[in-house]
Amino acid sequence: MNEQTAPTTREAIVLLSGGLDSATVLAKACADGFQCRTMAFNYGQRHCAELDAAARIANHANVLEHRVVDIDLAVFGGSALTDDTLSVPQAPSEGIPITYVPARNTIFLSYALGLAEVTRARDIFIGVNAVDYSGYPDCRPDFVAAFETMANLATKAGTEGDSIRIGTPLINLSKGEIISLGLSLGVDYSQTVSCYQASDAGEACGQCDACRLRRDGFAAAGVADPTRYRQDAMLG
Amino acid sequence: MNEQTAPTTREAIVLLSGGLDSATVLAKACADGFQCRTMAFNYGQRHCAELDAAARIANHANVLEHRVVDIDLAVFGGSALTDDTLSVPQAPSEGIPITYVPARNTIFLSYALGLAEVTRARDIFIGVNAVDYSGYPDCRPDFVAAFETMANLATKAGTEGDSIRIGTPLINLSKGEIISLGLSLGVDYSQTVSCYQASDAGEACGQCDACRLRRDGFAAAGVADPTRYRQDAMLG
Repeated sequence: MNEQTAPTTREAIVLLSGGLDSATVLAKACADGFQCRTMAFNYGQRHCAELDAAARIANHANVLEHRVVDIDLAVFGGSALTDDTLSVPQAPSEGIPITYVPARNTIFLSYALGLAEVTRARDIFIGVNAVDYSGYPDCRPDFVAAFETMANLATKAGTEGDSIRIGTPLINLSKGEIISLGLSLGVDYSQTVSCYQASDAGEACGQCDACRLRRDGFAAAGVADPTRYRQDAMLG
Repeated sequence: MNEQTAPTTREAIVLLSGGLDSATVLAKACADGFQCRTMAFNYGQRHCAELDAAARIANHANVLEHRVVDIDLAVFGGSALTDDTLSVPQAPSEGIPITYVPARNTIFLSYALGLAEVTRARDIFIGVNAVDYSGYPDCRPDFVAAFETMANLATKAGTEGDSIRIGTPLINLSKGEIISLGLSLGVDYSQTVSCYQASDAGEACGQCDACRLRRDGFAAAGVADPTRYRQDAMLG
């Protein structure tokens, strides 16, 4: 008898944005033996570089399928990420950031729940993080737990006692710890795009909150920053 | 002093499908003093008659605005309402009906939550009913309560103690009671479309589960059925 546990072959849905965090989540789910379907959202982002990155990352991870769901969050307005009349903040702000998209993770997880129900996957993974994104209500453990409870009341699976789990492997990790985890799993972070205002080719601005967090993460992990920056990016 | 309570002027989001139930919910919310924004979903239904009906009903109710959100539930497959390879059942079935769309109410409520957050509405109304739709997991009081809990953890409003409420005025009513309520509020049910396979002009088939429930409801309420049926409809 081999004492090692046989690898599981359970299926999972992984929300994949093309950024650093979700690429790490996908690598973790694959390493844990899940066969993954990935889901990205075209929600009126200002650039498509992160969707291109998501497709590349999914392909490289050999997922069962990668689905892109068109959704119209711009109908809500009120966010710098979807509303062109608001500018992306250049400095960290107190409280809930202007880049918060209303009900975004709730909507994304709801679509993942629909796909999980149809494919009979029982695990949904999302790269939320309560350390760096403490200002986002829908990145907190309480929110995730409440969504999981709701999901099990909403679906055939939950109704029949076959529980759905929302996995958040990054929720308590610092950016440096996330990067160290990903590197140990072979993630190529040069393929990921985190910048709120990346060029079409995926080059980062180096100045937005997301760029700052990411750069600090590589420094904390003690590794070189592989991010592709715009030629005119000011890194400071 | 006038002893009557002054009418409230709070804003609400009302999910409006164009069917009998949601038209009644809208009338109830208006009668209770809410200024309403209505939201309908174009999710790959087989016919657009119910969307046309939703727009007419919203216009007649003088809502603040009526929004139609395009969403792609067909990407999930697995339901007779969105998958052309499955047929609509002609007889009542046990358990969860084949017409159940995966995670549908979860997704619809999530969009309503996003709109509520942006417009600062604190009330969301949905016409779910646990009597006639006991086979649908996401029509039960437990599901609605769990969604409300999640919604208050997901949003700025809930985080700041300004609770969001999910209102379900029909949840414990029979179809006959819903119709009696609506008639007392002036709802014109000839304008609503419930049929799963209505014609483009909104004429009902008379045979599907939705038609049967609706016809029985008018009979139970003791009023004439104002539904516009197809010329070849077999009512029996």
